[in-house]
Amino acid sequence: MADDLLVKGGPLWAGVGLSWSQGAVAVKDGLVTYAGSADGYQPPAPPAKVLDSQGGLILPGLVNGHTHGAMTLFRGLADDLPLEAWLHQHIFPAEAKWVNPEMVELCTLLAAGEMLLSGTTTVCDAYFCMTAAARAYGQVGMRAIVCQGVLDFPAPGVPDPGQKFAVCRDFLEYCQGRWPLVSAGLFAHSCYTCSPATLQETSRLAAEHGVPWFTHLSETVHEIYTMRQRFGADPAQHLANLGILESLKAGVHGVWLDAEEAALLARAGVGIIACQESEMKLASGTCDIPGLLAAGVTVGLGTDGAASNNDLSMIGELGFASRAAKLDTMDPTALSAVQTLDLALTGSARCLGLEGVVGRLAPGFAADLVVLQALAPHLTPMYDPASALVNQCRGADVRHVLVAGRQVVADRQVLTFDLREVMARVRGLARQVAGPGA
Amino acid sequence: MADDLLVKGGPLWAGVGLSWSQGAVAVKDGLVTYAGSADGYQPPAPPAKVLDSQGGLILPGLVNGHTHGAMTLFRGLADDLPLEAWLHQHIFPAEAKWVNPEMVELCTLLAAGEMLLSGTTTVCDAYFCMTAAARAYGQVGMRAIVCQGVLDFPAPGVPDPGQKFAVCRDFLEYCQGRWPLVSAGLFAHSCYTCSPATLQETSRLAAEHGVPWFTHLSETVHEIYTMRQRFGADPAQHLANLGILESLKAGVHGVWLDAEEAALLARAGVGIIACQESEMKLASGTCDIPGLLAAGVTVGLGTDGAASNNDLSMIGELGFASRAAKLDTMDPTALSAVQTLDLALTGSARCLGLEGVVGRLAPGFAADLVVLQALAPHLTPMYDPASALVNQCRGADVRHVLVAGRQVVADRQVLTFDLREVMARVRGLARQVAGPGA
Repeated sequence: MADDLLVKGGPLWAGVGLSWSQGAVAVKDGLVTYAGSADGYQPPAPPAKVLDSQGGLILPGLVNGHTHGAMTLFRGLADDLPLEAWLHQHIFPAEAKWVNPEMVELCTLLAAGEMLLSGTTTVCDAYFCMTAAARAYGQVGMRAIVCQGVLDFPAPGVPDPGQKFAVCRDFLEYCQGRWPLVSAGLFAHSCYTCSPATLQETSRLAAEHGVPWFTHLSETVHEIYTMRQRFGADPAQHLANLGILESLKAGVHGVWLDAEEAALLARAGVGIIACQESEMKLASGTCDIPGLLAAGVTVGLGTDGAASNNDLSMIGELGFASRAAKLDTMDPTALSAVQTLDLALTGSARCLGLEGVVGRLAPGFAADLVVLQALAPHLTPMYDPASALVNQCRGADVRHVLVAGRQVVADRQVLTFDLREVMARVRGLARQVAGPGA
Repeated sequence: MADDLLVKGGPLWAGVGLSWSQGAVAVKDGLVTYAGSADGYQPPAPPAKVLDSQGGLILPGLVNGHTHGAMTLFRGLADDLPLEAWLHQHIFPAEAKWVNPEMVELCTLLAAGEMLLSGTTTVCDAYFCMTAAARAYGQVGMRAIVCQGVLDFPAPGVPDPGQKFAVCRDFLEYCQGRWPLVSAGLFAHSCYTCSPATLQETSRLAAEHGVPWFTHLSETVHEIYTMRQRFGADPAQHLANLGILESLKAGVHGVWLDAEEAALLARAGVGIIACQESEMKLASGTCDIPGLLAAGVTVGLGTDGAASNNDLSMIGELGFASRAAKLDTMDPTALSAVQTLDLALTGSARCLGLEGVVGRLAPGFAADLVVLQALAPHLTPMYDPASALVNQCRGADVRHVLVAGRQVVADRQVLTFDLREVMARVRGLARQVAGPGA
């Protein structure tokens, strides 16, 4: 049987140790059937279709381990502020006023468009009103783990915190088998905003439905201080004390983990999703990625939401992760380009429970791939694709994107929905958020 | 008399405190005659030509305070290495073998194309064989201060260090009045690679020709250690001891300046050009920009060369400068978006002696301006142009560029030379640099 599609015409970076100066990737039924040298592709029948990368670099779609998609509405609304003022005077009030299912669907569409156009094909999105987010990703044709947020105080779509798990159950049932590429999860906000009972029920409900759960973990010094005051334990130890650490798929941020916490995470098989660009902007610190890797912790990368990053480009995140590691350690050899790129591929994939599914182009993996336009001055010359990706590529270099073998971006245009109309509608909504006189 | 050109059709960010939601910039004879609200432009005669930004954001061209343009050839040649191995085993040997006037002209053209396409209209470029670099910038129509490098050991184009000042004199005479936008300067490599006599002669020769001189200053801990060992003084104090600190226009990097060195620089009126992206990648540390500003030092931004950045985008540099300041100080209010943007405009302009000439759009300033395409998902919504520029813009958002009123980039295409051909030639040269089997 012939393959559905062959992508070729340029260099292929398919994963660590898997690169070819002239590569080819064949696809059938949404999966990779071949990834290797163009010459080595010798199918019994010619593929149904060929996508010529025209010299462009072919690589696996990037995996965004953590974002809050709908927060694109609040992108740049309030920058350069202390964390508490930012959250309590700007973000929480804006969320209370503007977040509803219609807003979440619209602004998640914007997020999805931005992510696809910058080479992300898989995302883990945690927010509220998540049936609406699931609809957005379903419509877009992007691979997503969509997580309903859990908090002990009123939240968008959950005015009565007593109903939070009822909302979660409805959400999990709604998502069940509805879209082939969208799955559900839960996201407990943090160990300091969720009671022990809430954390335990999140873990239990996730297990009951066979879905992953996540939480913000060890983001700020203030969090560590609060946890020690209130529970006499740092957050990972707190989850271990509650008997639920091993059920956690991954923690997000991991900025203030000490050696004991890192060892605990490694033993429990819990990953850390670092969001360095956001952590730097909020002055939280940065995640010690080389240290965590040395301790045996799986590390992935995420962008965080657009209110704190302020973009959703995983390519941008690569540059910050690499440079933050070198700066922190004062060692220019720390976190090489290949290691950094792999964090955003197999690292994030493992943190999301998608190892063996995404993050690499090899037979049996999902045909989630990106073609980068390499004919640009900032990419000239290109001695090493991994170095170029980490050190000077940017989202705008992405030209084509496939998810599960389906082309969703062609020549920098999203094919599956009207992004222009979505942008116009978000701009209209933003004018209301900014208020009169803005 | 009618203006030559009017740029309008979108928001204008003309400088700190100078922004309009619908702006206009009028140009005559290469200078701005009007910058303000579109409604406020009431000329006696209509302008000869109108450039409609179509909703795009209009801003002053960015000022790259420091680069080594021709090093684009070595972009990504050797990353993730210790500084000494990087320099001595890779960069210096590659320079000795490949740098010559033809290479410098070609690779500086590539650098100029990359800079223009990412919104830089003024650059200070320090390297060797600089008559060739001056020819490149002259051809491109970019505003440049082109500085011949000074070193006490053999350098490209200066095989006999005894001839270094003869080469400098020839260079300074060659440049004299040759291109309207290109001026000359000198660049003493550093206080640890140039003897006191060399530094003093650089200062004297610069004064004799009425040109600025610059030097790398306080980049690494190793440099500080060497200077204390050899001269019993940190580099700024060393220059003060030699009686030439006040003649220095600006030092580059300024990572390891203590309070005394900062006070010395402030008193002497010497600026510091920070290159945070390069400093992070080389694990040198980062320049404490908020601290230097508080000490009264003028701070500008630069990209450094493509071998250590690895791109020449000042828009990218904005994001790193802002986030590095917040991370270093653990204060999210440090270096606001407006302050950061101003570093790359009036800050760099002052460091280069171009205050009142570039870095702002106001009557009498050079008509060096950029139009950014704002209709993109990562720029939607845009509550505040300065925040967008610092936090999520990227070079590829640049659509049009004017230098001295002349359009040199239109719809993302460089108009003044064949960039495609330059890229092809650099790729050819890079294949030779990489050697057989690469």
